[in-house]
Amino acid sequence: METQSKMIEITKTKNSRINEVDFDNLSFGKVCSDHMMICDYKDGKWGTPQVLPYGPMPMEPSSKVFHYGQAVFEGMKAFKDEDGKVWLFRPEQNFNRINISAKRLAIPEFPKEYFFEALETILKLDKDWIKPGKGNSLYIRPFVIGTENGVSASPSSEYRFIIICCPAKAYYSSPVKVTIAQQYSRSADGGVGFAKAAGNYAAQFYPTNLAKEKGYQQVIWTDANTHEYLEECGTMNVFFRVGDKLLTAPTNDRILDGITRKSIIALAEDDGVEVEVRRVAVKEIVEAAKNGELKEVFGAGTAATIVPFLGFDFNEEYYELPKVENSYGSKFKTKLQDIQYNMAEDKFDWRYEVKVD
Amino acid sequence: METQSKMIEITKTKNSRINEVDFDNLSFGKVCSDHMMICDYKDGKWGTPQVLPYGPMPMEPSSKVFHYGQAVFEGMKAFKDEDGKVWLFRPEQNFNRINISAKRLAIPEFPKEYFFEALETILKLDKDWIKPGKGNSLYIRPFVIGTENGVSASPSSEYRFIIICCPAKAYYSSPVKVTIAQQYSRSADGGVGFAKAAGNYAAQFYPTNLAKEKGYQQVIWTDANTHEYLEECGTMNVFFRVGDKLLTAPTNDRILDGITRKSIIALAEDDGVEVEVRRVAVKEIVEAAKNGELKEVFGAGTAATIVPFLGFDFNEEYYELPKVENSYGSKFKTKLQDIQYNMAEDKFDWRYEVKVD
Ligand SMILES: Cc1ncc(COP(=O)(O)O)c(C=O)c1O
Ligand SMILES: Cc1ncc(COP(=O)(O)O)c(C=O)c1O
Repeated sequence: METQSKMIEITKTKNSRINEVDFDNLSFGKVCSDHMMICDYKDGKWGTPQVLPYGPMPMEPSSKVFHYGQAVFEGMKAFKDEDGKVWLFRPEQNFNRINISAKRLAIPEFPKEYFFEALETILKLDKDWIKPGKGNSLYIRPFVIGTENGVSASPSSEYRFIIICCPAKAYYSSPVKVTIAQQYSRSADGGVGFAKAAGNYAAQFYPTNLAKEKGYQQVIWTDANTHEYLEECGTMNVFFRVGDKLLTAPTNDRILDGITRKSIIALAEDDGVEVEVRRVAVKEIVEAAKNGELKEVFGAGTAATIVPFLGFDFNEEYYELPKVENSYGSKFKTKLQDIQYNMAEDKFDWRYEVKVD
Repeated sequence: METQSKMIEITKTKNSRINEVDFDNLSFGKVCSDHMMICDYKDGKWGTPQVLPYGPMPMEPSSKVFHYGQAVFEGMKAFKDEDGKVWLFRPEQNFNRINISAKRLAIPEFPKEYFFEALETILKLDKDWIKPGKGNSLYIRPFVIGTENGVSASPSSEYRFIIICCPAKAYYSSPVKVTIAQQYSRSADGGVGFAKAAGNYAAQFYPTNLAKEKGYQQVIWTDANTHEYLEECGTMNVFFRVGDKLLTAPTNDRILDGITRKSIIALAEDDGVEVEVRRVAVKEIVEAAKNGELKEVFGAGTAATIVPFLGFDFNEEYYELPKVENSYGSKFKTKLQDIQYNMAEDKFDWRYEVKVD
């Protein structure tokens, strides 16, 4: 045990796995970096965070997380610039959001100083896992799980907060076609859709598999009551460009308040593009597709950055999107990545440097 | 390793924990019996089920269940009669239901013969954990979790099916008051409410905590769209006795198709009680409470059996339920338990004997 940090106990790996990894052929989220953080909550308080070698942990089969899905997570990325400096993107947003998610799932909030100190400790130890170059990053997955043993359906009295990291390249390796949900739904009013709650994702797998069988990689979810309004998509918020305007749904208790989404809104407005944050009707988008006004549809999220959709399916009809020059999707992706990789001015103060040397 | 069963590998415990357990003071779900079953799914098929001593299992932090809540479960009970014979109650219903739940969560179905052979093997080994006497039982928790390592938001390619058992007495130790949901909701149309999906339960914890702060142990969920219709409650379906009629909500894709519920409907009809399975409006129940027509409200589920509610809260007003003689709740609880404990004729063929000697 070495202690380089005031508040964290650190155990370094003796056997780095970095040389076993083919960084040119990464499958998203499959390989974890050398170190992780764990911190246990017991008797009403969080214990000392520990950074230690990534590896399996013993879990009792009666542990609450397996039975009642009491778990929330975050997704963020570390980027390396050409000078070897390491940057996070708006990390305080992820920190705030995991505690918002935690509250809705009756999970105790995690202390801010532990979160940032743990991130910096791991990134320092695992800095060689972050490769420079646009598209390369270290995906960071903070998550909390209920660890009390016992199968009564009530909140856990014990939790484990964990941070693991996975080197990443592009999330989608092929172009994305989507289908608009008309039967299944992702979340209810008064439910947990706005939280990054584990169960929200498993609930999407079966309808997404049905979509895949028809050749669509993702589902754009609609409101559960009427299926008339477009909401979000897998692990992305969705933008529609109609004419020169950019449309996206407002966040509510069914939709995740995405950090990429709010950054794109800011970048677009800064760029003089008119952005309408309002309910977007399926009918309106189908109409716009028919009359040629619909120029682009793209998804936006940390893992995938910005992903242009090739087309969408609605009511068994496929609407192909045009190929536009100067697409908003690629323009704002470039602007976003230029900030993330320290290649452009950071006028919004979004970059957060992690000193790794 | 001993093999007493054709299809299951059995490893018996060398150190039974049974003498450490105070069977008169059990807290629901806290203590597990000596043995459990695990069976792993890999490369597209289920491997050999293993019955082995209950204990921790190593899990990688990147295991899908922690991130995406891909997990479903069941709840059933084994009962012992005065002759030491052991009985399950309609176990094929639980088997069918876990596969219905699994399908919705994109989890592969589990083979029927493994399920029953595993149950019988565990109950034989742990028969002394089942105590005779009404109210005593061995609660059985079959569950499946996604175990592939990797944090991409897609269905797991590997799973573990597990069965653990917990000796149980009454679920609720004190009388239950409930509140009617007007803001939060449990599930959406087109969602996973009808499945015993892990995430459905964590989603209830926070609103239930808010209810508890006001003195109510549970929330009766209403439809997410309008909050006008009564649905279910924690881990129970709900019955309302208005005059001499018994009302309960129909099952749909938001409501679990409870085995206790359908058994009570059958017992009531057999007893000449008129049962209406139809949407039950909050307004109607509040009216009935005001004019004295509402005689009873009770919850029904495997863990809790039948639990009479003392009263309910709606719109910040508390409606106390009358004390009725010959209550339906206690009558059908007696009839149900008499069948479960082999104390009455089993005209519906619900009992399933497990040969433990
Ligand atoms: C459901 C959902 N919507 C949207 C997003 C995009 O959010 P962000 O841009 O903060 O990554 C994510 C992923 O994080 C998500 O899980
Ligand atoms: C949400 C929910 N509703 C109802 C029930 C009652 O179902 P059963 O009678 O089959 O136990 C349960 C528990 O199993 C449940 O989890």
